Amino acid sequence: MNSSHSIEKAVEYFASLPSIGRKTAQRLVFHILKQPKEYIEDFSNTLISLGENVRMCSVCFSFTDVDPCPICTSTRRDPKIICVVEEPKVIVALERTNEFNGKYHVLHGLLNPLDGIGPDDLRIRELVSRLSGVDEVILALNPSVEGEITMQYIAKMFENLPVKVTRLASGVPIGSSLEFSDEATLCRALENRVKV
Amino acid sequence: MNSSHSIEKAVEYFASLPSIGRKTAQRLVFHILKQPKEYIEDFSNTLISLGENVRMCSVCFSFTDVDPCPICTSTRRDPKIICVVEEPKVIVALERTNEFNGKYHVLHGLLNPLDGIGPDDLRIRELVSRLSGVDEVILALNPSVEGEITMQYIAKMFENLPVKVTRLASGVPIGSSLEFSDEATLCRALENRVKV
Repeated sequence: MNSSHSIEKAVEYFASLPSIGRKTAQRLVFHILKQPKEYIEDFSNTLISLGENVRMCSVCFSFTDVDPCPICTSTRRDPKIICVVEEPKVIVALERTNEFNGKYHVLHGLLNPLDGIGPDDLRIRELVSRLSGVDEVILALNPSVEGEITMQYIAKMFENLPVKVTRLASGVPIGSSLEFSDEATLCRALENRVKV
Repeated sequence: MNSSHSIEKAVEYFASLPSIGRKTAQRLVFHILKQPKEYIEDFSNTLISLGENVRMCSVCFSFTDVDPCPICTSTRRDPKIICVVEEPKVIVALERTNEFNGKYHVLHGLLNPLDGIGPDDLRIRELVSRLSGVDEVILALNPSVEGEITMQYIAKMFENLPVKVTRLASGVPIGSSLEFSDEATLCRALENRVKV
């Protein structure tokens, strides 16, 4: 399609990213071509370092440049609370709240019997091995079918262990309009209503 | 924001692209991190080659890996017709039509007196130097204010030269609904009506 093979290949790569179609990919590549040589060089190096330097933390299984990751080695974070998430990107969202000061554990997926994803495909065994000295495990998983199954599974597994298992509250999002909330969310918000 | 410096920098680079916000950038980077090492390596190399191999064709000023570009050196394309475009990406759109078999010339911009962009900022002089033996110059510029000014300027400049200057037809887009067409487009479509 493009007379330049290099451009064509770059367009293909950008178009392989989620939510980026061929037209957008083309726009991005032509934008990059207009930038100074140093920008393109630095952009490429950044990608190289993404592939070469980013690894999984051997403790919490989040992405990190150094193993164990800064959160795992931090002495200023409470090792008695572990927040369990599906993917590393959830940690970014939670860190933005400045509300949580414990440690994390990434499952890298959710249980999904239909797709054949069982407990051994997730980092559940590794979570169990971290439990000594831990008071509370917060399950910060998506309130989806798979998230619910996974939370139920872990809660049941930890039933007889001396650790409290909690989950994030579900309800109407802050700033949302009750009028447009779906039934399931309203239902849960009613069930879990709290004293004002 | 991200515990990994490499991830943070990659997010910043993706967010520097047009129409990509921080959240999307983050999604893209985490998507890339899930791919095999070879994908990331190849993606980086593609960017490097974009910076190192893509240059401007010294004849038509389009982007190319080899100078002059394949279209300029092709003997199967009619050298008597030159299609003038604002940017290299327009060539991609025109090539997709399989309708044009001449050569191209990229201006790299449009005249814009308000922003102080004059004829010397565009590749107009280089276009003039290509005119010997050329029968027709098609001005395929956007039907915007700047596009109109540029087309008028070039048409006037070539007035006394033995070359026909044409422009793309303006009118209602194929498949569009007359009901929702803007007045300027309808006006032009009426003016330029053709016999059925």
